[in-house]
This record gives sequence, C-alpha cells and structure tokens, in this order.
Amino acid sequence: MGLTLVEKIIKNHLVSGEMKIGQEIGLRIDQTLTQDATGTMAYLEFEAMDIPRVKTELSIAYIDHNTLQSGFENADDHQYIQTVAKKHGILYSRPGNGICHQVHLERFGIPGKTLLGSDSHTPTGGGIGMLAIGAGGLDVAVAMGGGAYHIQMPRIINVELTGELSSWVSAKDIILEVLRLLTVKGGVGAIIEYSGSGLANLSIPERATITNMGAELGATSSIFPSDEVTQKFLKAQGRESDWKALSADTDAVYSQKHTIDLNKLTPMAACPHSPDNVHPISELGNIKVDQVCIGSCTNSSLADMLKVASIFKGKTIHPEVSVSISPGSKQVLTMLSKSGALTDLISAGARILECACGPCIGMGFSPISKGVSLRTFNRNFEGRSGTADASVYLVSPETAAASALTGYITNPTTLDLELKIDTPEFFDIDDSMILNPVSADKYDEVTVLRGPNIKPLPIAEPLAESLKAKVLLKVGDNITTDHIMPAGAKILPYRSNIPHLSKFCFNQVDPEFSQRALEAGKGFIIAGANYGQGSSREHAALVPLYLNIKAVIAISFARIHRSNLINVGILPLTFENPDDYQKNELGDLLELSNLDKDLGNKDNLVLVNQTKSISIPLKGQFSDREIEILKVGGLLNYTKGK
Amino acid sequence: MGLTLVEKIIKNHLVSGEMKIGQEIGLRIDQTLTQDATGTMAYLEFEAMDIPRVKTELSIAYIDHNTLQSGFENADDHQYIQTVAKKHGILYSRPGNGICHQVHLERFGIPGKTLLGSDSHTPTGGGIGMLAIGAGGLDVAVAMGGGAYHIQMPRIINVELTGELSSWVSAKDIILEVLRLLTVKGGVGAIIEYSGSGLANLSIPERATITNMGAELGATSSIFPSDEVTQKFLKAQGRESDWKALSADTDAVYSQKHTIDLNKLTPMAACPHSPDNVHPISELGNIKVDQVCIGSCTNSSLADMLKVASIFKGKTIHPEVSVSISPGSKQVLTMLSKSGALTDLISAGARILECACGPCIGMGFSPISKGVSLRTFNRNFEGRSGTADASVYLVSPETAAASALTGYITNPTTLDLELKIDTPEFFDIDDSMILNPVSADKYDEVTVLRGPNIKPLPIAEPLAESLKAKVLLKVGDNITTDHIMPAGAKILPYRSNIPHLSKFCFNQVDPEFSQRALEAGKGFIIAGANYGQGSSREHAALVPLYLNIKAVIAISFARIHRSNLINVGILPLTFENPDDYQKNELGDLLELSNLDKDLGNKDNLVLVNQTKSISIPLKGQFSDREIEILKVGGLLNYTKGK
Repeated sequence: MGLTLVEKIIKNHLVSGEMKIGQEIGLRIDQTLTQDATGTMAYLEFEAMDIPRVKTELSIAYIDHNTLQSGFENADDHQYIQTVAKKHGILYSRPGNGICHQVHLERFGIPGKTLLGSDSHTPTGGGIGMLAIGAGGLDVAVAMGGGAYHIQMPRIINVELTGELSSWVSAKDIILEVLRLLTVKGGVGAIIEYSGSGLANLSIPERATITNMGAELGATSSIFPSDEVTQKFLKAQGRESDWKALSADTDAVYSQKHTIDLNKLTPMAACPHSPDNVHPISELGNIKVDQVCIGSCTNSSLADMLKVASIFKGKTIHPEVSVSISPGSKQVLTMLSKSGALTDLISAGARILECACGPCIGMGFSPISKGVSLRTFNRNFEGRSGTADASVYLVSPETAAASALTGYITNPTTLDLELKIDTPEFFDIDDSMILNPVSADKYDEVTVLRGPNIKPLPIAEPLAESLKAKVLLKVGDNITTDHIMPAGAKILPYRSNIPHLSKFCFNQVDPEFSQRALEAGKGFIIAGANYGQGSSREHAALVPLYLNIKAVIAISFARIHRSNLINVGILPLTFENPDDYQKNELGDLLELSNLDKDLGNKDNLVLVNQTKSISIPLKGQFSDREIEILKVGGLLNYTKGK
Repeated sequence: MGLTLVEKIIKNHLVSGEMKIGQEIGLRIDQTLTQDATGTMAYLEFEAMDIPRVKTELSIAYIDHNTLQSGFENADDHQYIQTVAKKHGILYSRPGNGICHQVHLERFGIPGKTLLGSDSHTPTGGGIGMLAIGAGGLDVAVAMGGGAYHIQMPRIINVELTGELSSWVSAKDIILEVLRLLTVKGGVGAIIEYSGSGLANLSIPERATITNMGAELGATSSIFPSDEVTQKFLKAQGRESDWKALSADTDAVYSQKHTIDLNKLTPMAACPHSPDNVHPISELGNIKVDQVCIGSCTNSSLADMLKVASIFKGKTIHPEVSVSISPGSKQVLTMLSKSGALTDLISAGARILECACGPCIGMGFSPISKGVSLRTFNRNFEGRSGTADASVYLVSPETAAASALTGYITNPTTLDLELKIDTPEFFDIDDSMILNPVSADKYDEVTVLRGPNIKPLPIAEPLAESLKAKVLLKVGDNITTDHIMPAGAKILPYRSNIPHLSKFCFNQVDPEFSQRALEAGKGFIIAGANYGQGSSREHAALVPLYLNIKAVIAISFARIHRSNLINVGILPLTFENPDDYQKNELGDLLELSNLDKDLGNKDNLVLVNQTKSISIPLKGQFSDREIEILKVGGLLNYTKGK
C-alpha cells in the first residue's frame, strides 16, 4: 500500500508510536520558529530546561507581532529574545525583517523537513512541502531541546485541485472554498494534503496562502507536494540545493477525498464572524467598506502586493476608505520599492505599515466603530480587529483592492481593471537583518537581558487525587483562543507577564470571570464543541492556570489548545455524551474523584454534579505520556523529571 | 524708523491694539491648521459657535498624531474631523498624507500670510516667511470663525547667521546652538527673526527646522525672510505665484541681537531632558545607543531623508540599534521611493513607519527600559518617548544616521562616510489625499459623524467674586504640557474624552493629583517659572478645568498655555515677588477676594495664605479683553456672548 506525502514525512521523523490514526506518535523536529508574542514565554520555558544550546537543525526567533512599542514592554521583550537567541544557538530575525511565515518560506523552508512553530499559522510552510505544525511555546521549547513533538496520528484528507483559476480569482478563494466545504471543525485531527493537475499553475506563495489558512479548518497542518514549481521558487531564492521532489504514492490511501474544480470558483468572502461563513462576493449585495487591510502571513507575498499595486496604479482610493499595506518581509518591501510598485501604492493613498502582523492581530489600524473592514487576512473573529463591533470580511487581495477603489465590497471581475504583474526570476537576497548566535564555546560571554515586564512562569502543582470546585464559566461552541486570551494592541505587550494578562481573560465573554476565578481559588470551565480553536497561544492555557482553573470539560477541543492545556497541567475532558453539556450550569459544584486511577481508565471517568445530583460520564482519551504529564503538573515538570 | 519683517506682517494684519511691546494686539488670521490630537476639540468648539462656514482664506485639518489606531477611538475621531471639515469649508488631509507642518510648507504656506495652528510647532511655517503661530484649539476655532487672534505684542529678537555650515553640520545644529544661547525661556514673549549672509545657503526645509524648534525657545514664532531661496522652493512646488519678496527694513530696530557664525558650529546634541541642554557631540564621550528615530516635523523633509539614505547606502545598521524612519509627507515618501533612496533605507534595516508624528509624540516605537534614544525630533522631555526612564538626545539626521551605524553617539565628521544627495528641481505634486469640503450651498447635505469617544466639552462657570480653596499641587520650574497632560500612545486617543483623560493629569509628577482634585471640588496649583512650556494642547487647561482647578499661581507662564488657561476660564496669576513661591505648600488654604474688582487692578491683587497667615501680592497682567473672558468663564462663553 502506498503512502501519502504526510505519511512519508512522518515515517522519516517517527521516534515513537505507530502511524495509526488516533494513536500518539512522537516526531523528530528539524526546525523550530517562534514569534515574539509567544516567543518570550517559549524561551523562558527553554531556559527552565537548562539546556545550553538548541539541538535542532535550525531554530529561529522572529519579531513580528509586538511591533507598535507603545511602552517599554515590546522593546524589552525583543531585547530578551535577541539575547537569549544569541546565547542558545538560535537565529534572530530583527523587527522590520518581516512576518515569520513569509520570511521562513523565503529563506529557510525545506521540502520534507518538519517545522514546529509557536504560531498557529506555522502550516504556511506546507506550501513548500514541509510538514509544518503550530504548537504551544512549551512544545517548541521541548523540540528546541531535542525532544520529540507528540500528536495523535492524524487522518489525511486529500483535496484534489483540478482545472485553472479564472482571472481575478486567486488562492485565497480556493482556501475560502475549502473552508466553506469543511467548516472550521472539518480539519480537526487531520492534515490536508493537496494534489491534482491544478497545482501546476499555483505558485509557492499561492500554495502558502492555502496551507496558512488551513489553520482555520482546525487542521494539524496542510501540505503541497514539492514539484517543479517548488524548485523554481527555491532557485529564485538562491536555495535550489534545498529542493527535492516529494509527493504521495499514486496508491496512497486517504481518510477523505474532495475535489475542487478551480474553473468554477468565483471571488468569495468569509463573512463576519467566522472564516467558514463563506459566500460569493456576487451574493453579498451592497456593503459599504470603511477600511481595507492588505497583508498578513496569508497574503503578503511580493505577488500579492504587486497585484494590489497594479490595480491601484494611477488611481486614488475611495475618500471614505482607509487602506493599509503590511508587506510580508523586508525582501518583499525592498523588491516592491525597487520595482516602482511601492510608489504606485503610496500614490494611490495607501498607508504603508511595517513588515509585521499589524492589523491582523489588532496591533493598530483598528476600524471605526461598527466599521466594515475588508482584510486579506486569515481570521475574522469578533474583537480581533481591536474594536468590539467591527464586521470583518476575509477576501483576496484582488477583491480587497477593487473594493478600496469603489468603497463597496466589489467583485473585481465586474470592474474594468488591469492586472499585470511581473514576478521576478530571482528574488533579492539580503539576510543582514537575521543575526547569528554565538558559537557554543562563547555561551558564557552572552548575558540574557530581561526587562521588568518579564514575570515568572506559572507552574501547576501535581494532579490532586480528587477535584471539587464550582463551574466558574460556561461557554458555547467554537470558543477561540481570542475569546480566552484576547490579543490586540493593549494586551499583547504583556505576553510575558501572566499576572497582568490574567485581567483580560475571557473579557469579551464574561468580564467578571477573571476576578471570580481569582477569588474562587479553584474551578472548572464548561465548554461546547471545538473549544480553543484559533491560535497556538499557550497563554490561553497559562492564564487559566494562573486563575486556578483545574479542568475544562467540553464537547470537543481544538488540537493545539488541548495540548496546551495538558502541557500546563489543566485537564481537558470531554463529555461521553455531548448532550450532557446542557446539564451543567454556572455555579454548579462539580467533583472528579480517583483521578490518580481513573484518568487513564476511560470507563470510570465520571463527573459528579453535586448541585444537580447527577453523574456524567466523561472521556479523557489521554495517551500514557499525557497522563504522566498531567500527573506531575505539566510538561515542564515532566521534562525536567526525565 | 524701519520695520522688522514681523512688524510688517503684523501691521498688515492688525485689527486692534498698537504695536507696542507687551500691549495686546488683535491679528487677522489668513490660514488655520489643526492636527487630530487637538483638532477634535477645536472642531467641537467651532461647532459650539454655530458658524456654518469658516471665514479664513484657508483652513485645513491634518491627521498625523493618532495614527496607531489601537481601538476604535482614532478612526472615529478621524471620521468626525473628516465630516466636520467637509461640512464647514475646511480642507481635510487624510491619514497617510503626512505631518501637518511638512505638508503645509509644501502645499499651502505663503510668505507674508498669518497662520494659526492648534499645534505648538506651527511656527515651522516661518521658514517660508509666514507669521505662523501655535495656539490652543479654541483660539483656532475663533480664528476659523473670522475672529481675531490676540497676543501681547512680542519683542523681536534678531538672530543673524553669517558664514556657511561645514559639511556634516546642519540646520538642526543651528537651532541647537540658538537653544544653547537663549535657553527654553529665552524666547518667551518674543519672535525670532533670522537674517544675514548665512541664509543664502539655507534651503526652506532647513529654515523650517530652525523655525520649528523655535517653539522650544518658548518663542511666539520664528521667521525667515522670503528671498530667492523661498522663490525656488515655491517654484519647485508648482506655486511660484504664491511668492513675494519679504524682509526687514535695513534700519529695523530689534529688542535683542545675536550673531552666529555658521562656520564655527559643530554637530551638537540636546541631552536629557531638555532641548536647551546642548553640548557638542565631541564632548559627550562614549554613549551606547539603543534606538535612533528619524523624522518628525523638525527633520522629515526629502533632503533630510536623502541624507540618511546616502549614509546608510550599502551598510547595515548596528545589530543592537533599532532605527525608525517617519517620512514627513506622502510627497517625501513618494519621492524617496521613486529615487531609490527608500530601498537604501529598507536594505540597511531601517523600519519604515507611517508619514506621521509617530515616535516623536510617543505614538509607538518606544525604546527599551532605560534606553538611550537618538532622535531628530524637537523635544526630549521626560516620558515623552513612551517610557518613564529613557534618555533622549536630539540630534541632526547626519548625527543620527552615523550613530545608527556605529551603535554609539557619533560625531559624523569622524567617520569616513559619503554624503551625496540630489534634491530635485521639481517636487512630485499630488494632492489627491487632500479632500475638498462641499460648497456652502451643500452644507445641509453633510452629516457630521461622532463616535462614542467624543464627549462634551467642559465649560467653566462665570468667575466667582472670591475663591477659597487648597493648594492641590505644587510643582517646580519648567513644567511642560507633557507633565500636565501626558501624550503617548495610551492617552492621546482620548483627546476628545476629557473625563477619561483626566485620570492621567500630572501622572508623572503626582499620580494622586487627579483623584485628589476631583474629590476636593476646587483648588489651586502653585508653580515655578515657565509653567506650561511645550505644546499648544489646550487639554493641559481643559483637564485641570474638569478637575476643578480655579487658578494657577506661578512665577511665570509659557505664552500659549497662559492663553489656554484664560480661554477655559482658569486664572493664570504670577507672584509679584518670585520668592513668594516658596511660601506656599501643598495643602495650604488660599483665598483670593474681590476678584470682580481687583482682577484688573494690579495693585490690589492679593493672595491670602490662611494656613500660613500671610498675604502675598500677585500680578495678573490681564488685558481688558482677557478680564472679560475670565469673568464670563472662558473664550467660548465670551465669543457666544458677542
């Protein structure tokens, strides 16, 4: 029986377990990346493991999230990451050098390698044929220390792309179609493997747009084969030697198969407030636009920017629309500038922001109250734009640019516009903003500098035999990590300061939760399906830990968040019968007993709701390793114990 | 007897009073400008006067301060200003179009005209031969409504520039030398008029650097003659018809004269924490630099940027220095981009920020804790960078760029650098980001949009016959408007929300002041010399009004702030004998009696310190008009009453 592309890469990196769907496997990690919002914590965790030098083939720290610097916190955190990276053998990509996923694709991604990143959009690397997975900072820290990364062997879903995109329809529309088909839950426990004749015309940045936003499917990762297109891209980046051909065997077996005929796609939008609320632009009616944001790790490649510049050339953006451009990298910005396209963007009235995540994470450029914002980004969760009441639509750069000119959400095919871009044969290569670490023998010469914003890690106690506490929060389906631990310009600077951060936990859902939990001393959260979808931020677990949450009992969990809960020592438990979700209410007194014995015994795990006098069967579905981690109070205790 | 250049312009605009030093004069205002941090308030005040259309030759609203948009407030305020401008006959310069003073110089400044701006660096316009004055928003609102602007006839100080600057020494070093000579108090009650053979080699942007930072002298304004250099600049901007020759008569009489031999100047820095703490770079010793910020209304012209690009070309900034570039305008950025200089800046690793004030007002890009920041800006007040403990040095673009490469504060003449710039014969002219208002007959068609951040104006009550209250705050000399009402990324978005803003009043000086004042219900502030130096922000008066401050009793006041206090209905009183400052302490109970009679009677104005049982003679020095304004509770009541 042949292997899928994913199975081939897993097979090459398997250090424990068997490739059977649902079974825990351990993977050797070749490369790691961090960004600065999750990175401070990841490096604090790495330091706590007392390992002098990373053991990966490549580890790199990017600065792309906290770039506004409205106070000392951001710059201090950057300095901490710069010095800790220099000391421990980690490359450091300076602020201004670009968004981690775009830069990694350009300069470091290698087909067939594994990449673990403390950012949920790490699967972007799948565009170049890597097995690239987003994880919590602690998992990345363990991988930097040479430890394996553990997941349940995923299902492999094949999405076959046939035909060719019409003009004005682009990669963003493909992934929006996949989201429409599969929904934000459709990828849970799965990796999406793309194939088909349609690939030949999809460039690496286009493929990366698709794998990037696979995160919104809840998928563990997404991946494209490594083919001539990949080779051409690597050659243009001066890295042809990193190329090798990689694809699934013709007789590979997939858990699921979908086919998308590219010819049939039209420009689409993910409407508020979910990336899978996808509709054709032509069906949206007249929606006035207040702002248009172009960029993010999804659509900030040179080609994306050149398209927008071509549409804007010689025109002026609508007087009631504010437009931002966040180029993906210094390479993109330099080439935009050299080519003259940047002049076209500026002349049209676009506001050029830094090569960073910017508005995508609510880091500035928030819209007006009740504003309609068109974004080429990957998430339109409520509140993520930095305002509570924005309506965010996710669209392609073509749709975004066309709408910026008209002032209404506009199907670009309906305009008489010209789209003419020349992508260069060779990219401008200049890695001067990526700093090398010192050699291992100079370890002692580097002092790690810590600003006052960097507070100690919260660490869980070993698991109690039984837990008796109240329901401190009850939430519905599809709670995102943005709900749990909001991002945005006012909060992100405190990612290395858990006590301060805790004041904002679940703020949009229940502003009193944080205070209630601190006062309660211990408690539970009851949640619906797909709890913890969204980003890889372990802060969505570390902060509840700090707030004394002992267990989250949900209908189902998003993969990364479930791991993060286990990693910090919070129990992620699911209802055996999803209907039991209804039976528990805020304030109910719950009890879990015999945890030392029953955590691994799926038949005996029972929740007693003392308020309602009922017993509710639960599922743990923990691997032996996970049980060990939970028992000792999290992955850091577990790793140090080894 | 001949006239100075200033006297000629004043004579042409005089509507009341006589040109005798110290006497109140009323000036007709030809042009007004606002920026967004002061503009929301200025337009609320304009609306309160019920005048449908501005009566100036030109009024323009710029957006350059609140451009981070970390929440709905900024974009809402921009929308308010955009719609109120459209309705009332005011031009609107969209965010991204540039810093008010730079754009005004490029596109609107006219020799011999008067310009009143709600920004303290409005005197930048003096570089092109305008009489350009910074004022509070209410004064600007009155001017927009066709009312005169009142000041005391200033002393005219002549600064004669002879010789020629050595290479690597620039306009910034000239104004730093003037600051060293005259100090931050030296310009109080004065206008600085430049002349001399040295002018022939000073371009308009260089002259504007000097007039801009004249604000730091405490001067009412600074001005250069309009000569062939001015003509050439206006021609390059496609506005040659706006030019006319203007200069002082040869037998003009000045209050004071200084001569600076440009040949003798060397690169200098204003050291922490005052713009007049000026020392030659060569005497500073080895000071490690953490960040370098280039731009601001002082040094963000095309020539400034081209110099930096030339120094950076082919090099990489020091690995421990973060560099920001804030181009002054869309014109500057477009031309930088077209010329290839922007590519040189990006390639060297500089972070390109928006065409806006940015780091100069603490709007992002704050340094690390205890960081050393080199800035081409105009102010290095404590806390202004957005951190409490930064050491900010003000330097020329040449010094800033050289230091960015070495990592230490560096005299650029000591390096083997090349400085080669080509300033263009014609500038790129594109005013598409400046929106025209509707014509007067379409007034009713425009709805002014107000976001929830826009709160009502506080308005004073008519002056009481006597005031008895405690000293709620005692402060020393040179208190800046940044001390009174801090700016920065976290506070500036609330400039149209006085109740929220009041929480930050005097935060760095005495964090408990705000709460104490609110609770006290009424009170006094005792201050040293030059109280209220710095920006034109009327918020430094409106917020104390909201906090129930009835009078500020100081050794002396900065001009704009004194007017702002009167405008909002707070008494600015000075000690007849400066030593009496010492006799009053925090908590003392003070009484002012017979205000209705004695405010205008300088011999009878007496402060009784009941706690100390002493009587202290005060000076009011109010004009009849000012007394009327104070009696009715501020300029808005006064204007409406007329």
